[in-house]
Amino acid sequence: MNNLARIEAYSDGVFAIAATLLILEIRVPAVGIHAPVRELWRALADLWPSYLAFVLSFGIILVAWVNHHHAIRRLSKVSTALLYANGLLLLTVTFIPFPTALLAKYVTTDLAPVVVVFYAGASLMCNAAFRVWFAAAQRPVYLLKPEVGKEQIERIWAQMNAGTLGYTTAAILGWWLPFIGLGIVIALTMLWIVMSTQHRPEKENLI
Amino acid sequence: MNNLARIEAYSDGVFAIAATLLILEIRVPAVGIHAPVRELWRALADLWPSYLAFVLSFGIILVAWVNHHHAIRRLSKVSTALLYANGLLLLTVTFIPFPTALLAKYVTTDLAPVVVVFYAGASLMCNAAFRVWFAAAQRPVYLLKPEVGKEQIERIWAQMNAGTLGYTTAAILGWWLPFIGLGIVIALTMLWIVMSTQHRPEKENLI
Amino acid sequence: MNNLARIEAYSDGVFAIAATLLILEIRVPAVGIHAPVRELWRALADLWPSYLAFVLSFGIILVAWVNHHHAIRRLSKVSTALLYANGLLLLTVTFIPFPTALLAKYVTTDLAPVVVVFYAGASLMCNAAFRVWFAAAQRPVYLLKPEVGKEQIERIWAQMNAGTLGYTTAAILGWWLPFIGLGIVIALTMLWIVMSTQHRPEKENLI
Amino acid sequence: MNNLARIEAYSDGVFAIAATLLILEIRVPAVGIHAPVRELWRALADLWPSYLAFVLSFGIILVAWVNHHHAIRRLSKVSTALLYANGLLLLTVTFIPFPTALLAKYVTTDLAPVVVVFYAGASLMCNAAFRVWFAAAQRPVYLLKPEVGKEQIERIWAQMNAGTLGYTTAAILGWWLPFIGLGIVIALTMLWIVMSTQHRPEKENLI
Repeated sequence: MNNLARIEAYSDGVFAIAATLLILEIRVPAVGIHAPVRELWRALADLWPSYLAFVLSFGIILVAWVNHHHAIRRLSKVSTALLYANGLLLLTVTFIPFPTALLAKYVTTDLAPVVVVFYAGASLMCNAAFRVWFAAAQRPVYLLKPEVGKEQIERIWAQMNAGTLGYTTAAILGWWLPFIGLGIVIALTMLWIVMSTQHRPEKENLI
Repeated sequence: MNNLARIEAYSDGVFAIAATLLILEIRVPAVGIHAPVRELWRALADLWPSYLAFVLSFGIILVAWVNHHHAIRRLSKVSTALLYANGLLLLTVTFIPFPTALLAKYVTTDLAPVVVVFYAGASLMCNAAFRVWFAAAQRPVYLLKPEVGKEQIERIWAQMNAGTLGYTTAAILGWWLPFIGLGIVIALTMLWIVMSTQHRPEKENLI
Repeated sequence: MNNLARIEAYSDGVFAIAATLLILEIRVPAVGIHAPVRELWRALADLWPSYLAFVLSFGIILVAWVNHHHAIRRLSKVSTALLYANGLLLLTVTFIPFPTALLAKYVTTDLAPVVVVFYAGASLMCNAAFRVWFAAAQRPVYLLKPEVGKEQIERIWAQMNAGTLGYTTAAILGWWLPFIGLGIVIALTMLWIVMSTQHRPEKENLI
Repeated sequence: MNNLARIEAYSDGVFAIAATLLILEIRVPAVGIHAPVRELWRALADLWPSYLAFVLSFGIILVAWVNHHHAIRRLSKVSTALLYANGLLLLTVTFIPFPTALLAKYVTTDLAPVVVVFYAGASLMCNAAFRVWFAAAQRPVYLLKPEVGKEQIERIWAQMNAGTLGYTTAAILGWWLPFIGLGIVIALTMLWIVMSTQHRPEKENLI
């Protein structure tokens, strides 16, 4: 494999595993085996914070994977510095199952502010790692393909700035209004998916 | 890697991990270390619902992987919309270890209807995600290879319809007759394997 | 990716994950935090059955991976039947962490015969799956490369027969003499590694 | 896939999974759901040994992956002996989550010397496996590309010797001064990252 292929293979592995490990955080509820059927249904329904956290984190990792996919395509070569910047990004992605489990456990309690702020903070770390990644792709050695125009690079930085602003807002508001903070994180993820599937010019849509 | 290769690599990773994580749900039985040998044998035999759920879910994920393998081969290009449809499919595949563990724990109890309906429902979600995937491969941009004929596309939709019907039936019947419902899910999986290995024309058999 | 590449990618994923999940079965020992240092050393030393089971199963999965690697190289094409035979092989590989954990927990107790027989049985299932795999590579459609000679095929079957015989012997003897049974399984794995690295003709050694 | 590609795919899988499984060792803290908010913050802060161990082990696995990436690039072909030497390396990488969990649990207690020595020892095993790997790449069959000069090979051995010396020192000092021992391991990892990103000649930096 060439270098780009191998960095992709390793990254794909980490993205795929981080996403898949999320399911281990949803634990089978324990009810008495002679309990009435509706009790197990209720226990399964009461797991909604786990389902929500699972779907949200899976979505965030998927968006990160799609962005990483687009980013790698813009590289013409790889530096060792980029390998480590990529490692830092993967570190923040790998961390996600922990704030996810925390969110699932405490979001319905009085402790919701803590876990929402922590979750938004983890998303912010992931966003920051993307910034480092792109910086490493531009300096000290310029690694991007020649056909990647200045305008395109500016748009990427604008998108990353929007993410930084959004997650920071979510973390701050989440301290007082946890559900608003969580709502912002969810909205950002959905917005990104909708935007990237609908508002791109046709020729970019076919990647 | 080109785009199709990378979507395959990420998907293969998720399919492989989801299938492999299933084994974590089979827990080593605890018997006293001075217990007679037959007690451990019995404890191992009593794990049959876990073995059954493991093999069944492994089979369902394998069938999904083979289908995904065939589906990807029919694409000539990828859109961002398809990336997310693919992500949705992977989400439903990743979810499978949870209903599997639930089935293993409760299928031998009075609560069997709940877990069979839940399991058939999870299979139905996976089937629905395949429908979204194929819809995204046809609209808004047509992504299939020119040589994929109208007849072949109709056959794929017919097969997906059969799955939808089968899993819905399993979920409904499972409510009253859990073992019939479970039997339908097992039969569907086996039927698919037998059909795809035996009744295909020679030239398609060599993929 | 072509078909052989994708079957390899999925299989590599499963082999790699099954091998890596083994480490989850080694649990951090719990000693009081004010316990004398030698108590934690002793607790770590007492985990030797876990280390042994970890290394043995890692070795078995590695040997299976190398054999799978050689086997795939002999294919010129893939049938759907082979995809499922490959799936069956992966099922038996995925199962290995369970008998491994069982072995680690009970091998030092009076229940050793049970777990050694179970472990040898799981290895035998893996061996049987390799037989199905090769049968599927030869029938109903011949999938091997033309240059794979009759002699080479006979040698492969002879090796698989040796494995079948060895693991069956280990399972039977293990019932009465568990450490002899376990020793045979270990010896078989080491023998395979030594044989495949040393006694092959030079030209085959460079794969 | 050719042989080098497949050995890379399997290795990438193991590296990626070992790194990702580390997160499973950080457990969600349990506090009462009506506890004051600051109690959960404190519980999260008290997990710092887990975060530290997670980041350190992720860094060590990442450095090992980058080194493996460079090493594989220097091969012109693969022998079965190298496959098993590679397997040995992967075994030591797979093992890392265990000393990591051990470190996280006991580093703040009187038992710190035990877990620091154990951790440095596990790093040393990984280093030793790299030595076996390179030896297998040079004997009995020479597998390196012709353009890999004698000087480059000597530099690799010098780097591996430095690692051997560093980890051995860390293990010995760690017995008396655990935090010095741990500091050496951390410093070695950071030093390697800084060195490999900054002090390489430009043409090698672009890999």
